[in-house]
Amino acid sequence: MTRHYNFCAGPAALPEAVLVRARDELLDYRGRGLSVMEMSHRSPEYVAIAEQAERDLRELLAIPDNYRVLFTQGGATLQFAAVPYNLLGLGGQANFLHTGIWGKKAIAEARHLFGDAPVAASSEAGGHAAVPRQSDIALTEDAAYLHYTANETIGGLEFDYIPEAVRPDGRQIPLVCDMSSSILSGPLDVSRFGVIYAGAQKNIGPAGLVVVIVREDLLDRARADMPSLLGYRALAEAGSMVNTPATYSWYLAGLVFQWLKDDIGGLAAMDAINNRKAEKLYAAIDGSELYSNPIARRNRSRMNIPFVLADDRLDKPFLEGAEAAGLLNLKGHRSVGGMRASLYNAVPEAAVDALIEFMGDFERRKG
Amino acid sequence: MTRHYNFCAGPAALPEAVLVRARDELLDYRGRGLSVMEMSHRSPEYVAIAEQAERDLRELLAIPDNYRVLFTQGGATLQFAAVPYNLLGLGGQANFLHTGIWGKKAIAEARHLFGDAPVAASSEAGGHAAVPRQSDIALTEDAAYLHYTANETIGGLEFDYIPEAVRPDGRQIPLVCDMSSSILSGPLDVSRFGVIYAGAQKNIGPAGLVVVIVREDLLDRARADMPSLLGYRALAEAGSMVNTPATYSWYLAGLVFQWLKDDIGGLAAMDAINNRKAEKLYAAIDGSELYSNPIARRNRSRMNIPFVLADDRLDKPFLEGAEAAGLLNLKGHRSVGGMRASLYNAVPEAAVDALIEFMGDFERRKG
Repeated sequence: MTRHYNFCAGPAALPEAVLVRARDELLDYRGRGLSVMEMSHRSPEYVAIAEQAERDLRELLAIPDNYRVLFTQGGATLQFAAVPYNLLGLGGQANFLHTGIWGKKAIAEARHLFGDAPVAASSEAGGHAAVPRQSDIALTEDAAYLHYTANETIGGLEFDYIPEAVRPDGRQIPLVCDMSSSILSGPLDVSRFGVIYAGAQKNIGPAGLVVVIVREDLLDRARADMPSLLGYRALAEAGSMVNTPATYSWYLAGLVFQWLKDDIGGLAAMDAINNRKAEKLYAAIDGSELYSNPIARRNRSRMNIPFVLADDRLDKPFLEGAEAAGLLNLKGHRSVGGMRASLYNAVPEAAVDALIEFMGDFERRKG
Repeated sequence: MTRHYNFCAGPAALPEAVLVRARDELLDYRGRGLSVMEMSHRSPEYVAIAEQAERDLRELLAIPDNYRVLFTQGGATLQFAAVPYNLLGLGGQANFLHTGIWGKKAIAEARHLFGDAPVAASSEAGGHAAVPRQSDIALTEDAAYLHYTANETIGGLEFDYIPEAVRPDGRQIPLVCDMSSSILSGPLDVSRFGVIYAGAQKNIGPAGLVVVIVREDLLDRARADMPSLLGYRALAEAGSMVNTPATYSWYLAGLVFQWLKDDIGGLAAMDAINNRKAEKLYAAIDGSELYSNPIARRNRSRMNIPFVLADDRLDKPFLEGAEAAGLLNLKGHRSVGGMRASLYNAVPEAAVDALIEFMGDFERRKG
């Protein structure tokens, strides 16, 4: 068996310890005589797995008791629809911070369904090199909530603060965050948010699962005209089992949560590791003549680090050399080109060290 | 490692050969140095897996070229919404055959979203003991399509024919089928259908994946007001990758398709095995004094076989004895009680033999 270093932006690397445990339990879950994949979602053994996963996530993020945790399907993309369906039932408009491709997709879906979705602040004019400041954010009079993307996976742009969502009339409205590519990368004050959602395939588990954390008082603002499966109230009341959930993905997410607790030591420890990994890669980029990253220092993502080579004719040999060295999936998103190293939780520090060494070698040989 | 016999109605047993292969490839997919779970859905290796799965499914079901195959999320339950969104854009109403709990849920969702959903025929008055005959089906003048549930997982009721969907004006309209619990149980004439959909967690793979087979000319009847991710046209054009699909479940479905082709020998062979399994269990039920099944012979499900004990005080010792004998998940659905043995493709004939032997022993000892 060979395990290479995987810098994929998602579906992304999973902790090897998690995969080993999944493998060992795959045909027979702890002497039960069947795979977790083969368990009824309503069986006592599966319900125990599901509830343990939720408890561990609550402990990791210190989720307050007045928040519900949902394990559902359709990725962040289906939440782009589910959020306005669930929060616009009392009227008003969704307001957005636009900081890149994922924020733009969330805006497009809200407009597709509900006609308008005002942008309260945007970093588009500056090429999404820095996020808007708090003082740039101007909500509409009828803003029902403010949506933003904590970390732009493609642009490599991350908020360095949690925005305040205050309307011109001074009223605070719910803050909604797409946290797909940065959730669990460090401690978080969940109480600042109305809704947090995250596709699993970066820091949580395999693709096909999305986690929603929603404040209880927001469960009763839903429009009547949405597909029933998108309703937060129904999902919360059914323990996310309105229908058969993505049981195996949920189980794997639970293994990741246990790994974060037991092997890593919690999110403060994860935070320190993530800081170290990102800092050394940015230092290598900044210290070179060949590589560069365009993002303002205060908003550089710790999870997704895009960089370009000074001469794009070197892109192909760079990627070929990296792959030959066991450094996989460094190609940048097709919409921006160049390179991107995603350093999610499961990417070990040794992977970053190996990447930096390869980059240095490559620069000396070719740059 | 112990593997018991698993009669769960879903998530259900998977072929042991599939689980063994998944286990062996879990940390390192064929020397690539990473798990399938960790692959970008857009990487050449993953796209090859996804395309192979579709090719194998097309071969198994002899799907005509003018049908598209979608691998999406949210289970059959989200399709209860997606189907009317996709097919009612030109007006008209969804018509339904009501044969049990799953059909009723599909009707409820169409009514929830669109106000009315006429029932063209129902088996409710007879306690869903037999499906309506073709001559009982009366479509409305404005019927846009006819929806039915090929096999009612809870009631154990299966259509023994494919209905014709003809309006009073003589016009044929698309036939839509929820085939979640019987797809791939035998050969099928796909050309009779407009849309077939099936949650994966019975005969396809793990929960969290749903397969949709849709005739190409139906891709342009969608309403404008649906969540983008539910649109068949967009999914078809993107190769089901509008967003990140449930990659690992899709891969496992592909392994199941390969098992059906290579280990079983195709759907005609599977059909014969399924006939044998079901016939011997029904014969054991019918030949006993203790067990009974209420469904008309022509509509007895091959996949889900509910039965009751003449004295329901014996239910508990029956289930305890079965579990002790390694026969798992025989308890009937909570809405109907009694027992249910689901004999999906992955349940081996030996499991049915063991169940019949246990039932006979139990009757002699307790009945």
